[in-house]
Amino acid sequence: MSAAFTALGTPSLILDGARLDRNIERLRSHLESLRVPLRPHVKTSKCIEVVRRAIAGQPGGITVSTLGEASWFFERGLRDIVYAVGIVPQRLPEAAALIARGCRLKVILDAPATARMVAEAGSSLSVRFPVLLELDSDGQRGGLQPGSAALFECARVINDSTGSELAGVLTHAGASYDCASTAEIRAMASKERAVAAESAALLREAGFPCPVVSVGSTPTATFAEDMSGVTEVRAGVYMFNDLIMAGLGVCAVEDIALSVLATVIGHQRHKGWILVDAGWMALSRDRGPASLPLNQGYGVVCDANDGAPVGDLIVVAVNQEHGVIASRDGQFTDISSIEVGTRLRILPIHACATAGMHDSYSVLNSEGEIVDTWPRMRGWKA
Amino acid sequence: MSAAFTALGTPSLILDGARLDRNIERLRSHLESLRVPLRPHVKTSKCIEVVRRAIAGQPGGITVSTLGEASWFFERGLRDIVYAVGIVPQRLPEAAALIARGCRLKVILDAPATARMVAEAGSSLSVRFPVLLELDSDGQRGGLQPGSAALFECARVINDSTGSELAGVLTHAGASYDCASTAEIRAMASKERAVAAESAALLREAGFPCPVVSVGSTPTATFAEDMSGVTEVRAGVYMFNDLIMAGLGVCAVEDIALSVLATVIGHQRHKGWILVDAGWMALSRDRGPASLPLNQGYGVVCDANDGAPVGDLIVVAVNQEHGVIASRDGQFTDISSIEVGTRLRILPIHACATAGMHDSYSVLNSEGEIVDTWPRMRGWKA
Repeated sequence: MSAAFTALGTPSLILDGARLDRNIERLRSHLESLRVPLRPHVKTSKCIEVVRRAIAGQPGGITVSTLGEASWFFERGLRDIVYAVGIVPQRLPEAAALIARGCRLKVILDAPATARMVAEAGSSLSVRFPVLLELDSDGQRGGLQPGSAALFECARVINDSTGSELAGVLTHAGASYDCASTAEIRAMASKERAVAAESAALLREAGFPCPVVSVGSTPTATFAEDMSGVTEVRAGVYMFNDLIMAGLGVCAVEDIALSVLATVIGHQRHKGWILVDAGWMALSRDRGPASLPLNQGYGVVCDANDGAPVGDLIVVAVNQEHGVIASRDGQFTDISSIEVGTRLRILPIHACATAGMHDSYSVLNSEGEIVDTWPRMRGWKA
Repeated sequence: MSAAFTALGTPSLILDGARLDRNIERLRSHLESLRVPLRPHVKTSKCIEVVRRAIAGQPGGITVSTLGEASWFFERGLRDIVYAVGIVPQRLPEAAALIARGCRLKVILDAPATARMVAEAGSSLSVRFPVLLELDSDGQRGGLQPGSAALFECARVINDSTGSELAGVLTHAGASYDCASTAEIRAMASKERAVAAESAALLREAGFPCPVVSVGSTPTATFAEDMSGVTEVRAGVYMFNDLIMAGLGVCAVEDIALSVLATVIGHQRHKGWILVDAGWMALSRDRGPASLPLNQGYGVVCDANDGAPVGDLIVVAVNQEHGVIASRDGQFTDISSIEVGTRLRILPIHACATAGMHDSYSVLNSEGEIVDTWPRMRGWKA
């Protein structure tokens, strides 16, 4: 271990650079075999260095979840941006300003009333908003119902106005996180593709342009076998991976690139407990979906140096700055050598949520050296 | 509503100043009747303006959960600080530096091996670390067992060294959050007091000094009926309150001073769903203990202007930047007037966790005007 690693305060967010590169290459190569490009989602990393690696060899477009992220990444040179959360009227002036500065920003919406607001705002702001119509492919969140009258009404409003243009359709099968098997994920990937591609075909038949057909989530992108009719795939967490993805079979535990470095602060030896200085402020409160096949608590405990799991230790409870570590199923794990001051690394349940608690990544190379510190974008304003 | 309120971006963290003042006054007055001073915990607010209000009329000491908080508040003029998370050897130089700069910093520990490390480090760093012995009063986390040989061994090691001095005992009955009734909380408050006061008496009988007897959690502080033998009470979340505290009967829903301002981004009207731009990144993933008497989801939905709950709407699901709002029990709530662009306020399940997702508070006065912006300390370094 390098001096920089030893000097790191705890809790700290560690990013294993070799695992990051391997994860990015794995999905890139799979989607290349399906002949579809990737539009990485930046919300997981919120980090320009990570996103630059993810767009290498791709068209260069990104996906964002806030206009703040759009501005932040635009200022760092990225110009082709899908803002994949429903647009609201209050944000249209900011979106128009980004477009006026040269950003190829697309917005999404899923209701005729919103389509009218966007079209009117575009006209009055003298901008033509490129609009993707959001489709519901999993019943979990927003989105127009495929084939619905509202879908065609949105298309008509957007297409008829000088303040907007129809850029295509978009859907996200986030319910893939709750699937119980890879067969279920494959079926969901197939449905996600079909909803988007068939809606695009119907819109084109009705005389509307629909150049973009955008789908994606890390599980469906990983297990998709067919991307016909799809023009781009969005995914974010695949870069880091986490215990939810490992539970879904998307990755192995050894592929998880993110971890939280923590220090042992005490024990309750008669209970087999180790206490560490990483609570929910460092790990997040995310426990993943109820469908996780194995109880991973708030994270899997690893050796700080080699990153390998220690027995079957997991974080069983968290307070703000305390984590309680115990064995997963009450099995014996020898904790006698894990004294106060020992450092451990904890693999995250949900990488987006754990990374969201930190301001930067300490980047670890394969020799166990901290070679860089990469900042994250903070908050909702660039 | 003022122009500043209308101009606030969403999601934003709102702090109702009148409710904050009322909450602070309520616990101050209760503890005054029990003749015990308050040492407010800063981890909930991480905000100097809030903490200054909480220490008004008190001795002025605070409680912190990280050394970063200790440094940050010390730099803002607070000098009497209990660092209430177990000390580790790596942090002793930083603690010594704070003491050398004039900070009356106390550290805590709960094992003889740690006591020896602190005593030795104090000697070699030429500082005398004031030490509180952490006691286990609820079986949930760390702490020495009351009356145990290890307790007296810690006292002996700390008291015998020139590098440390025994400042007293400390305990936290965090299990009070899981209580099912106020009778249970009263019993826990009684036990928390007894564990601390009786351990202090035993230490004094054995010839050790024990000036400080420190207890506290918001529920036990609120329902305590006797503080004899206790020299200070620690509590934090009482300033803001939240739906966990309301569920425990510590406060009414109308006492919750914190909320997240959000904007409606869409609907699934056939399901009675409203989608907003506040997901777990704005609300946190905290759902509170399983013992909460009422399902509050990820928060209770209120009118943005008057702050009153809207029907029985709660946030039933969260993604990173999406919240899904529906009625708590499938009861009818008329959502027809809640159009895209409407703003709502969401009361937090756990104020510490929700505030932890934001960098500042927008302070609302009783006329619905944003009168100030108060920054929060970020991360683990001052």
